[in-house]
Amino acid sequence: MSRRRARTRERRSRQALAQLPWRQVQNPYSAIEVLTPEQVEQIHDASLRVLEEIGVDFLLPEACDILRGAGAQVENGGERVRFDRGLILESVAHAPRDFTLHARNPARNLTVGGNHLNFCAIASAPNVSDLERGRRPGNYEDYCNLVRLGQALNIIHLFGGYPVEPVDLPPETRHLDCVRAFVHLADKVTHAYALGRQRILDGIEMVRIARGVTHEQLLREPSLFTIVNSSSPLRIDGPMLEGVIEMARHNQVVVLTPFTLSGAMAPATLAGALVQQNAEALAGIAFTQMVNPGAPVVYGGFTSNVDMKTGSPAFGTPEYTRAALAGGQLARRYDLPYRSSNANASNVVDAQAAYEAEMSLWGAVMGHANIVMHGAGWMEGGLCASFEKMILDAELLQMMAVFLEPIEVNGDTMGVQAIAEVGPGGHFFGVGHTLERFEHAFYTPLVSDWRNFETWDESGQADATQRAHALYKKILSEFEPPPLDAAIAEELDDFVARRKKEVASAA
Amino acid sequence: MSRRRARTRERRSRQALAQLPWRQVQNPYSAIEVLTPEQVEQIHDASLRVLEEIGVDFLLPEACDILRGAGAQVENGGERVRFDRGLILESVAHAPRDFTLHARNPARNLTVGGNHLNFCAIASAPNVSDLERGRRPGNYEDYCNLVRLGQALNIIHLFGGYPVEPVDLPPETRHLDCVRAFVHLADKVTHAYALGRQRILDGIEMVRIARGVTHEQLLREPSLFTIVNSSSPLRIDGPMLEGVIEMARHNQVVVLTPFTLSGAMAPATLAGALVQQNAEALAGIAFTQMVNPGAPVVYGGFTSNVDMKTGSPAFGTPEYTRAALAGGQLARRYDLPYRSSNANASNVVDAQAAYEAEMSLWGAVMGHANIVMHGAGWMEGGLCASFEKMILDAELLQMMAVFLEPIEVNGDTMGVQAIAEVGPGGHFFGVGHTLERFEHAFYTPLVSDWRNFETWDESGQADATQRAHALYKKILSEFEPPPLDAAIAEELDDFVARRKKEVASAA
Repeated sequence: MSRRRARTRERRSRQALAQLPWRQVQNPYSAIEVLTPEQVEQIHDASLRVLEEIGVDFLLPEACDILRGAGAQVENGGERVRFDRGLILESVAHAPRDFTLHARNPARNLTVGGNHLNFCAIASAPNVSDLERGRRPGNYEDYCNLVRLGQALNIIHLFGGYPVEPVDLPPETRHLDCVRAFVHLADKVTHAYALGRQRILDGIEMVRIARGVTHEQLLREPSLFTIVNSSSPLRIDGPMLEGVIEMARHNQVVVLTPFTLSGAMAPATLAGALVQQNAEALAGIAFTQMVNPGAPVVYGGFTSNVDMKTGSPAFGTPEYTRAALAGGQLARRYDLPYRSSNANASNVVDAQAAYEAEMSLWGAVMGHANIVMHGAGWMEGGLCASFEKMILDAELLQMMAVFLEPIEVNGDTMGVQAIAEVGPGGHFFGVGHTLERFEHAFYTPLVSDWRNFETWDESGQADATQRAHALYKKILSEFEPPPLDAAIAEELDDFVARRKKEVASAA
Repeated sequence: MSRRRARTRERRSRQALAQLPWRQVQNPYSAIEVLTPEQVEQIHDASLRVLEEIGVDFLLPEACDILRGAGAQVENGGERVRFDRGLILESVAHAPRDFTLHARNPARNLTVGGNHLNFCAIASAPNVSDLERGRRPGNYEDYCNLVRLGQALNIIHLFGGYPVEPVDLPPETRHLDCVRAFVHLADKVTHAYALGRQRILDGIEMVRIARGVTHEQLLREPSLFTIVNSSSPLRIDGPMLEGVIEMARHNQVVVLTPFTLSGAMAPATLAGALVQQNAEALAGIAFTQMVNPGAPVVYGGFTSNVDMKTGSPAFGTPEYTRAALAGGQLARRYDLPYRSSNANASNVVDAQAAYEAEMSLWGAVMGHANIVMHGAGWMEGGLCASFEKMILDAELLQMMAVFLEPIEVNGDTMGVQAIAEVGPGGHFFGVGHTLERFEHAFYTPLVSDWRNFETWDESGQADATQRAHALYKKILSEFEPPPLDAAIAEELDDFVARRKKEVASAA
């Protein structure tokens, strides 16, 4: 693509959407701490007792061999693994406190750790919906459109899995089509599912091809991540463990996230759920370091609660927010990067979807999460990806990013001169101090409508969800994929074709 | 009312609404600080320069006399007042750091200051709306219904003015009808408007009658509050000042709140708007202490920004949230209680209304606001009171109250025993540790619907706003006013009748 054409595209895409420019977000404010330092130590201590006395089931013989070799006690002929607290702490201490995640476009590389904040698109929903066509099972067309949206929205830093599961593609080769589509449509960091050894190895190779780097360079530069959910309580599945082993061996990023739903898969107390979350996370993280000391890993927290009357999972509850903040304190206890989520349980993109998302986001942001999974588009406790919610969440994320810009305080910004010029009873619209700042003084929203009631009423009374609908259609209609080197596209196509043949002949 | 009947009523009202019990809310977490200590001092210093060099217009000769007597420089024959910084700081230092606000029902007394958080109902909207009847001008019937809702919702601690302006009542005697209705329908702390001396004196007397206390006791016990908005920039109106003088003289609470809309009535920078906010607040607060040293007063912050393209005011923006947090830091700089708000600019009770409200609330709560004005029901930047929003906001406030309960961490709550009992791969539904906590483990929502999509879909697909509508109707249909002593009701009626005659004969 010529530079001129690139510029034209750039201009067109800027006109399409008045959004924040791509930026890495940092949180300069102190984290909210809902646990006292003594409480953090209590939870730390109890979770080590769980690992010493109760143990965790690792459902893969190869994993048990690695664990035994590293000094863990593996039950005779079984899969129950108990850890001495010294072994856990020593292993976890090998993990890096921060690292760079490399994208195929180096301008999209991300720092994970410290006060860096990275927002993911939604991942892994089985259904998809929008206002026009309603709710439907996940499919490849919607998958591609959600990837396009995630690419077009600058505030989305990376993809945390398939935004929606394309169930119209055969499961054995779905990962090949999905990663290929991803590379064609986006240039941001992405994710592969730890569903057995081969899928992860395919994902690693495809990301290597997409970046156009050697195997050796890839081993030095984390470029792919995978979410590993323990099967709470206290169990990690075999296919997940195969993925963990290959990712750690290849120096790629494992995000170890217990899904500790208080009252169902974890105790019906926040303290108990956090003890269990911490035990499971530490066990998995220690395991990655036994595979490959120094491999990049992230402490994931996903503690929420069920509705005790019905058993329904709930998200963005007051319990959820406190658990998200406490999770950050625990991750920092071990100097590990932290992952949280933007979750809600609403069935419709309404006020509930928005307030539960905000409660989740405030927990993630002020808990100093480094990766916020499901940052945009998540509905129904993860069962549906919504196009309109993706746009609304982009607004929420942008607002957070601007909230995290420290107030600039100096002689010029304090404007005593301007206050004197305007004087008591005057107006600031016309003064130089205001005119100089006309364009960029304040956040410009994507979705929020600040017109007065009468103007809004006469212009058709669209609510935020309807406005988000129009916006997502517009973005898709104007979407142009990021440039991709023809040789890379070809190499990727060849790889996919070869692997599909192999899968077919193995069947 | 007999005790038995009271119990029956209590039981019935509990059945009506599964809400949190009445409680005073405290914030045990550290405030979010968006300004460094050095930046707080810079803003402090610049605002004192504004008061020394530019000054504030006090549009009431009596106020200027008081100011001159206290040592401020009043322009010859004019209203422009300049303050030496020593005079400001010395005066402000007389204000109490906390105090009790007395309600007619002592169980509803409130502590204002420290980490106490008190949520107000919406105040002062000219319009009112609900899903059934749409948007309409404020009127007495809706006024009474909004007061009933505010009384019925336990999470609403006090009233900050008329929830909606009853424009069908004559303005000269409106305050008499409104305060009388308030005393009949509610037993929580209330507010009177500083619209000239006589209205405030009427309000003070009616609150005294409602409480059934002597004038002397009322002077010892703050029982009424008033919001005083400076007419930014740097001006305080005459009728407001008359109110301030009488409230301070009677040891009642003045909440001094500059409405510093950045880009319109204040500089188009957050730092500049905060300098001006601080100057106006300190000038007004110092004045209250010149009238009556030690009179209870609250530092109000209401800095938001306009949309620079249209001039429309915006609320719940990233700028708003930072200003709310910075305002708390400034109030604490002077050891003063702090007031913030739950604001949004949406024209409809939708996702925007919810996310802007959350951005405001997080600023208020984590800014350690002691009074959160417009806590429930505010829409359209204050131009409309919504019945549905009142219910939705009650949900938001309840969630905040539960978020502010520290996590209980001890051997029992950490549940290592239960984790051992369930073991890897098990389930917590049936164990004793869960069953013991079945009823009160987690927050029970008012509005949130956590059912799965299919159940929700089949049951009519009501969104959060529609559910809030049904809930407000139900609360109103079951409302019974709190007990009121017959002698007090009679004294209040006599007072209102006498004052109405006086107003009529004066006209």
